[in-house]
Amino acid sequence: MTDTLRLGIAGLGTVGVGVVKIIQRQADLLTARTGKRIEISAVSARSRDKDRGVNTAKYGWEDDPVALAVRDDIDMFVELMGGSDGPAKAATEAAIAAGKDVVTANKALLALHGQELAVAAEARNVTLRYEAAVAGGIPVIKALTEGLAGNEITRVAGVMNGTCNYILTQMEATGQGYNALFEECGRLGYLEADPNLDVGGIDAGHKLALLAAIAFGTRVDFDAVALQGIQSITLQDIRRAGDMGYKIKLLGVAQMTGRGLEQRMTPCLVPASSPLGQLEGGTNMVVLEGDSVGQIVLRGAGAGEGPTASAVLSDICDIARGIRLPTFGQPAAHLKAAPPASAASPAPYYLRLTLKDKPGALAKVATVLGDNGISIDRMRQYDHPDQDVPVLIVTHVTARPSLDAALAALPATGVVEGEPVALRIEDV
Amino acid sequence: MTDTLRLGIAGLGTVGVGVVKIIQRQADLLTARTGKRIEISAVSARSRDKDRGVNTAKYGWEDDPVALAVRDDIDMFVELMGGSDGPAKAATEAAIAAGKDVVTANKALLALHGQELAVAAEARNVTLRYEAAVAGGIPVIKALTEGLAGNEITRVAGVMNGTCNYILTQMEATGQGYNALFEECGRLGYLEADPNLDVGGIDAGHKLALLAAIAFGTRVDFDAVALQGIQSITLQDIRRAGDMGYKIKLLGVAQMTGRGLEQRMTPCLVPASSPLGQLEGGTNMVVLEGDSVGQIVLRGAGAGEGPTASAVLSDICDIARGIRLPTFGQPAAHLKAAPPASAASPAPYYLRLTLKDKPGALAKVATVLGDNGISIDRMRQYDHPDQDVPVLIVTHVTARPSLDAALAALPATGVVEGEPVALRIEDV
Repeated sequence: MTDTLRLGIAGLGTVGVGVVKIIQRQADLLTARTGKRIEISAVSARSRDKDRGVNTAKYGWEDDPVALAVRDDIDMFVELMGGSDGPAKAATEAAIAAGKDVVTANKALLALHGQELAVAAEARNVTLRYEAAVAGGIPVIKALTEGLAGNEITRVAGVMNGTCNYILTQMEATGQGYNALFEECGRLGYLEADPNLDVGGIDAGHKLALLAAIAFGTRVDFDAVALQGIQSITLQDIRRAGDMGYKIKLLGVAQMTGRGLEQRMTPCLVPASSPLGQLEGGTNMVVLEGDSVGQIVLRGAGAGEGPTASAVLSDICDIARGIRLPTFGQPAAHLKAAPPASAASPAPYYLRLTLKDKPGALAKVATVLGDNGISIDRMRQYDHPDQDVPVLIVTHVTARPSLDAALAALPATGVVEGEPVALRIEDV
Repeated sequence: MTDTLRLGIAGLGTVGVGVVKIIQRQADLLTARTGKRIEISAVSARSRDKDRGVNTAKYGWEDDPVALAVRDDIDMFVELMGGSDGPAKAATEAAIAAGKDVVTANKALLALHGQELAVAAEARNVTLRYEAAVAGGIPVIKALTEGLAGNEITRVAGVMNGTCNYILTQMEATGQGYNALFEECGRLGYLEADPNLDVGGIDAGHKLALLAAIAFGTRVDFDAVALQGIQSITLQDIRRAGDMGYKIKLLGVAQMTGRGLEQRMTPCLVPASSPLGQLEGGTNMVVLEGDSVGQIVLRGAGAGEGPTASAVLSDICDIARGIRLPTFGQPAAHLKAAPPASAASPAPYYLRLTLKDKPGALAKVATVLGDNGISIDRMRQYDHPDQDVPVLIVTHVTARPSLDAALAALPATGVVEGEPVALRIEDV
């Protein structure tokens, strides 16, 4: 006789429907692999009657996800509604309190409330997992928590928002500007309801904060992630970076330094020939570095029905197989609150300035940089059909506070037009 | 009070020393992650007195790995000796019989005897794991068995022998021939004691057979892997493939077809712009494809002390954490003996022929191909300083039996010099 694992699924959007489809289509395969029948007892969603292309009539129904979470006929609550607060949080808390295991795809919920939810789950002796919350179908939570368990992690980096990478690579491929591609993404349905979650780096920042907590044994701390979106990146930046052998990516980096935990989700230049530099379109890539393993690179679809549902099923199958790990890889009570690094570690930077066409303008800028201890590796001045002169500077390795001081001092020179753009060059 | 997991480690070569170093250096981290103290009770190796750069004096010693495997003071036997038979097999069997969990890096042992060992382990209710046996530090066994557990796997492919990839990419980079680079690999210590394990594709074939068993729920069947080494690849092949936008890789492919399980480890052409095409040097890359997840690509060091030891530690930590899975992901008794596919699935092929400089030679070759139902996509005839004319042909999608029939019929034309080379073009 085969045991049964009974699910309650809250949320029948793209991911929820994908999960239902896999459970219906691959029932026998899932049983062969886990030793359990995986069944859906009941579901919850905004509208009961909507045609979702999948038959859910035989499952129980709850209008209220909290009521679903505590039903006696479910063993596991699968939270696929999204949102960092409101029903997703209430239902997750209710499920834990009722002794149910929880699987979620909700990066915002975990990034903002992961520590308290993990504590609650461990106190109640249930399992809370979220493979689908980071990088879609790529099993990166598992690779980091389990596959690299013997490593002191030295750095986690990656492109974790497919929409941003689509915009940046399409700008280069088509010669269109940021605004045109942003609008195209809206038409294609690639943007979150609040597009700033995508292009502002917030969504990817949530993911990075989760990986950092696992990697470094620290409490998840999304507020400490330095965020910068891609809105200020121009086609010129992409082309000039390309001239120098770089690509521009919205890159997440987390590393533990002597000055504390560094977490950044910002546009960076990476070598064009590196795996990250070669990443085109909406694909995600995560780079994990450990003291023994060196560098591991994982690549795959970061979103979409099938890939995200695949990751949800990974967690469901793990729990069905008896694989039960603490939410962040070690008991939540042991996780340390890491001091955030006061500034990003030193790196070379790409600077784009527009100079007024005045005698000595460039010399004034160079003086400000020099006064702040910044040495220049390369500089290019471009043709200027009008009065303003675009100038591109690549610095040698520079401390971020020095760079910030220089940027703050530039307006007083009177030769700089508009806001300078400073992008970090990351050696990854 | 923390539980202790007591190891017996057999084999103190590169990998064994790497494992000892991690356990010594990261003791506290391993305990934080697993909840257990991981300790080495005893070791075994060929020579007790050799200086290995790591202090093993405090561990018990056994000359005989079988005696180590059954010691009362070990919970887990870590087999890092290598070899498909002899002491590695005897000690693994003894450990299982004595109720010890086993972690091994031994691809040959598992590829040839994995089924019987898995049956024995499951009968004895112990766990037998081997993450380090495939693709070094890349957690590919875990990704396939657990991370993609919700997928029907459609194809597994990869470059899994770093030495072969080093030779092929260095041929292109330096313009040296195969023999010169083979000798260089010998000097650098990149070759197995029997180099045919590397350049003949056997080592990589072992790895492919293990992945196929997990992917398709079939009994591991190394004998059914179609093997072809890289010895016949010339610099000309690499350059001509490059002209057409391809790279040559020793590529493993496993897929379930209507005609049975197809397993190949052969030199193939892959698109130069694909992740596999871009893979340089000794790095490994595995591509996993599933019906829901699409394509996942994993990249990392396939060999070496740190990466391989990292993979061994992944298994040790899993077992310390209570993660216990059947050897091939589902109970060994359920695994089916898959009928091997009678031939590789249809694909385009690259053919390299040398024609005698006779009137009508090319027409005769084209006729033989046409008579066997093979249509030509592209053909190039190269300059010929001497009497023999190198000709390169790319076919449209061709059934392998048709190709074999054509290749068998070519000598009778009297216009072909030497042995034609046929390389599959894999769309991956």
